Amino acid sequence: MLSRLLLCTTLLISSATGFAQKQPSFEYTDAQKLTLIGKAFTSTPAVYHRVDTLLYADIPPAVKKLLTHSSGLAISFSTNSTAISAKWCTKKSPHYNNMTAIAYEGLDIYIKRGNQWVFAGVGRPEADTCTEFTLVNNMDSSVKECLVYLPVYDETKELSIGVRKGASLQARPNPFKKNILIYGSSIVHGASASRPGMAYPAMLCRQTGYNFINFGVSGNAKMERSVADMIAPLPMDAFILDCVPNCTPEQVTERTAYLVKAIRAKHPGKPIIAVQSIVRENSNFDLDIAEKIRQQNGNFLKEISALQKTDKDLYMITADGLLGSDHEGTTDGTHPNDLGFDRMVQKIKPAVLKIFKKYGL
Amino acid sequence: MLSRLLLCTTLLISSATGFAQKQPSFEYTDAQKLTLIGKAFTSTPAVYHRVDTLLYADIPPAVKKLLTHSSGLAISFSTNSTAISAKWCTKKSPHYNNMTAIAYEGLDIYIKRGNQWVFAGVGRPEADTCTEFTLVNNMDSSVKECLVYLPVYDETKELSIGVRKGASLQARPNPFKKNILIYGSSIVHGASASRPGMAYPAMLCRQTGYNFINFGVSGNAKMERSVADMIAPLPMDAFILDCVPNCTPEQVTERTAYLVKAIRAKHPGKPIIAVQSIVRENSNFDLDIAEKIRQQNGNFLKEISALQKTDKDLYMITADGLLGSDHEGTTDGTHPNDLGFDRMVQKIKPAVLKIFKKYGL
Repeated sequence: MLSRLLLCTTLLISSATGFAQKQPSFEYTDAQKLTLIGKAFTSTPAVYHRVDTLLYADIPPAVKKLLTHSSGLAISFSTNSTAISAKWCTKKSPHYNNMTAIAYEGLDIYIKRGNQWVFAGVGRPEADTCTEFTLVNNMDSSVKECLVYLPVYDETKELSIGVRKGASLQARPNPFKKNILIYGSSIVHGASASRPGMAYPAMLCRQTGYNFINFGVSGNAKMERSVADMIAPLPMDAFILDCVPNCTPEQVTERTAYLVKAIRAKHPGKPIIAVQSIVRENSNFDLDIAEKIRQQNGNFLKEISALQKTDKDLYMITADGLLGSDHEGTTDGTHPNDLGFDRMVQKIKPAVLKIFKKYGL
Repeated sequence: MLSRLLLCTTLLISSATGFAQKQPSFEYTDAQKLTLIGKAFTSTPAVYHRVDTLLYADIPPAVKKLLTHSSGLAISFSTNSTAISAKWCTKKSPHYNNMTAIAYEGLDIYIKRGNQWVFAGVGRPEADTCTEFTLVNNMDSSVKECLVYLPVYDETKELSIGVRKGASLQARPNPFKKNILIYGSSIVHGASASRPGMAYPAMLCRQTGYNFINFGVSGNAKMERSVADMIAPLPMDAFILDCVPNCTPEQVTERTAYLVKAIRAKHPGKPIIAVQSIVRENSNFDLDIAEKIRQQNGNFLKEISALQKTDKDLYMITADGLLGSDHEGTTDGTHPNDLGFDRMVQKIKPAVLKIFKKYGL
């Protein structure tokens, strides 16, 4: 029954696009032979996990599990192939009703054109845990610099990149400079981007050239001391703390100072940028949610302001305008849609670039 | 196994939002006792079908099936309830990997604030065919004008609106004036809006106050004569034809004139607005798709230009800038994400308003 439904979907989609997909033969290379970017920890036992959780006994199990998701990871390579495909296997997420399967267990590909990273195609996940899909087809045969983004809400078990027989395929260096960790909630993690490359840390990378690292842990960015202690020593050039949404107002008050001071102790003189929670659109009429967000953001501002008295390298980006002003920037009231993510980027980007410039980054 | 996964998802989502959902008791009213808006045909045997397909023997079966989807339909009512919930049943769509389940089989609710329709919440569909969900909670008790949008890619079998015991609940008139049919592809139908209210005809309604009617038939807007003959006599004040994406270039040439003339014969002196296909973002590197779109749009412009010589009420909105210029406006290369839909609206809205003004609409 399921396969019949999926066949039906596939037919509908093929029909909807109107373009039959050609299936040229591909030669596959394990993506581990190419360049994996987007990881805060360079060595993990499972290549597409974001952290070696065995090394951190004290971090909460939920955080460990979420850090096995391949959010923010991408493969950097160049090829002159006229078509690029992928074979990948995920652990198989549960079904998220506020995300597309392309986002939570699929792929998307960008190709550099001049100075711009330009969207080229997606990998649509199939019913089983493994899929083969042609990401982009019928291209000219010039050498192209490519980025393939991995699923944001699932564990990626295997990934191979396919090119036409005889075409070149080479690892490329990380195209993004410096390292900026973004620690945050489901919003950083990638919900509800329509595809992996639309998560806001990924958008910031492409639009600024800086290497923003996705340390989003859906529902669990609670500034626990164990997590603060794990993050603090990482070899970063800057930190962005977008971790208000998952904390109670009381937790914001109790935990913010420890997190900031833990990072500061390891990174004197480097920018730490705190971001207030987006004002969730499900608070437009729900007075309880509206009050909770006011308290969360109010307490965060209070904590950060107090710390700024003795920390001149600590900055704040306020919630004002983060999702625009028309209240249309979320999928479900809590998680930005692509319109909301674009607006977040349009506010955060100039703010962080101004700060980075000041520090010569 | 499925239910375990879904439980897991629900927990993750509850945890992600950080706000436990209160479950006050609700009194339910069948939505058929309220006001259903968005239908081109006022009488259909199944209330949430867009057309009585039995009356049109000659239209293609795929078109008939797609017109059973509740795309663009909404319930208009007012209430002073502090919480609003819904119980609804869908036929149960196949799983679409380029859409959220909230869009294809869920709900969203808007509430009027001053002159603006403001997003208030969503209805997340559950695993079974029927779901009960609190759309919005903890509101003040003023009387509010509400719109609940129905699923865009599924057949809605039943729908009831729940309010707190003792609260008022009344049918409201259609808040949108005149009738403008938008005939088109999956893009009109609602793929890949993140929720029903983000399909572009729905956005146009809220932003302009005009009643744009969703006549999107995913993959099947092929300007067949039988469909043209079905659409032409409808009591509309204007027509928008966004039906290029599903046609071959040859079909565009062969079929455009018949469709326009069929409508014109029934509606002398009323505006007909032709819209070129968006330039799909999967054509950024795929030379075959790029060439096909050039031909589709070129042939459409040629046909419309020829017709305009004798039809002064026929207009054209070109593809230029419909998705913006950063190539980020789609979920999968073909279907706009909410960013793309917002950009389409920002181009189409002023163009149609200018035309409507000319006709005193």
